[in-house]
Amino acid sequence: MRIAVVGLGLIGGSLGLALKRNGTDMEVVGYARRAEVARVAVQRGAVDRAEGDLSAAVERAEVVFLATPVMAVREIMSGMASYLTEGCAVSDVGSTKAQVMAWADEFLPSSVSFIGGHPMAGKEVSGIEAADGELLRGCTYCLVPGRKAAKGAVERVEGLVRQMGASPLYIDAAEHDNLVAAISHLPMVLSAALVSMTMNSPLWPGMSRLAATGFRDVTRLASGSAEMTRDICLTNRDSLLAWLDEYVNELERWRRLIENGGEGVQKAFLEAREKRKDWLSQIQ
Amino acid sequence: MRIAVVGLGLIGGSLGLALKRNGTDMEVVGYARRAEVARVAVQRGAVDRAEGDLSAAVERAEVVFLATPVMAVREIMSGMASYLTEGCAVSDVGSTKAQVMAWADEFLPSSVSFIGGHPMAGKEVSGIEAADGELLRGCTYCLVPGRKAAKGAVERVEGLVRQMGASPLYIDAAEHDNLVAAISHLPMVLSAALVSMTMNSPLWPGMSRLAATGFRDVTRLASGSAEMTRDICLTNRDSLLAWLDEYVNELERWRRLIENGGEGVQKAFLEAREKRKDWLSQIQ
Repeated sequence: MRIAVVGLGLIGGSLGLALKRNGTDMEVVGYARRAEVARVAVQRGAVDRAEGDLSAAVERAEVVFLATPVMAVREIMSGMASYLTEGCAVSDVGSTKAQVMAWADEFLPSSVSFIGGHPMAGKEVSGIEAADGELLRGCTYCLVPGRKAAKGAVERVEGLVRQMGASPLYIDAAEHDNLVAAISHLPMVLSAALVSMTMNSPLWPGMSRLAATGFRDVTRLASGSAEMTRDICLTNRDSLLAWLDEYVNELERWRRLIENGGEGVQKAFLEAREKRKDWLSQIQ
Repeated sequence: MRIAVVGLGLIGGSLGLALKRNGTDMEVVGYARRAEVARVAVQRGAVDRAEGDLSAAVERAEVVFLATPVMAVREIMSGMASYLTEGCAVSDVGSTKAQVMAWADEFLPSSVSFIGGHPMAGKEVSGIEAADGELLRGCTYCLVPGRKAAKGAVERVEGLVRQMGASPLYIDAAEHDNLVAAISHLPMVLSAALVSMTMNSPLWPGMSRLAATGFRDVTRLASGSAEMTRDICLTNRDSLLAWLDEYVNELERWRRLIENGGEGVQKAFLEAREKRKDWLSQIQ
């Protein structure tokens, strides 16, 4: 089976490494805009070989993974459309799904199947150097088959996801985008806003001496790729803003609890602690 | 030298382990409200022995560390005051300093020296079982000498802090409380509010399948001891509320950036990412 991976950053590289670790009878062809990135991907064994042209990379591939920031997907789809093999399965790894599904309808030929994808995994560092064949192991991998996707193509993508060690989860694009706005995109904004508030403060020199592991963890999501986060804001704006408003309301509830002090705030912290503990025990 | 540690949870236990790891000619006596906790502390080697009475634990000690939640410090100070040895140094490890300094003035005899303390270290688990002799290594350890503290007593506490592997930082109580409100106490509230908003949502069953390591990290501070966080809210309320208001303003700035989309939001994310990177490179 020939597989093409377009975009060789953290996720594209990790996906290639995971496929090649377990795959036999499989050729993984990579494409990156920058030749240096493609070179490192080959060197690290994330792909068998790299092609300098998008058309050559996707030619004769049975599965094509698009692993670029969301906003780049549109141009890549329209650029590669005429080179895709009939019956080919195209998937992506973007953080939002509704926009990508609409582009697939618009730009991909009806002879190929589009299955949107989103592996729920990440790191605070990006780029091919940070790629890791174990990153996707055990993660939930969202799959959103296009309305016209062929059953065989969906099964082919699902099989590769399982081969990476991830757990496929079929979900609707709009539902996906709303849920990830709350548990992934909003937290990115919260982290970045905490960074900008503290580090732009005239008091930061004093704060920086005291900030420790707790601050490091709560701000970790501020270190994601700025291109990725910008594209999330562009393609999932309404859900993100709705959750941001909900969160500000929740902060106002906490503000009143703190103002009143004592038992109410302790109870609220205890409840948060217990609920998080339950969640952690479920995912482990 | 005899050292008493009153309160044998995560920090008291870690402090005992760190002292005993490096200390020679030193006896560490522990006290915990619950006998079972004291028993585990002895078994784990965090203290040489435990006393069932507070008075017996602090008797003849040259240094007493109070490692209980902040609100318990008042009663302990008044309860142990008449048993303290003349010239003894008393310190604490609480997350806020102004209130504790005022209690020391009110309840401790003038023959002893109070030096407020706050090691900038923590874990998402609490209790003696989670104590770790390496927890304090390399951390910034705030020290706030009382107005009447003797030079020798301050040096004694500083010497023990260095022996634990931590870096002493002398700071004013009010400045400390304002700075930690921004980089430690506010983040606890932000984490807990994200937990309560998501996990109380009717959509949580769907969200929970998608929440991954990013969500785990950004909510980590919601798992601190509820008693500790309640006491922080009680003793550092004004600073915490002021920073909470500042943060809501900052979120409104981010809201406008997201609404406008494109370059502005990318620039803001890029700036946050770069500033955090600079900070991380300084602390490593």
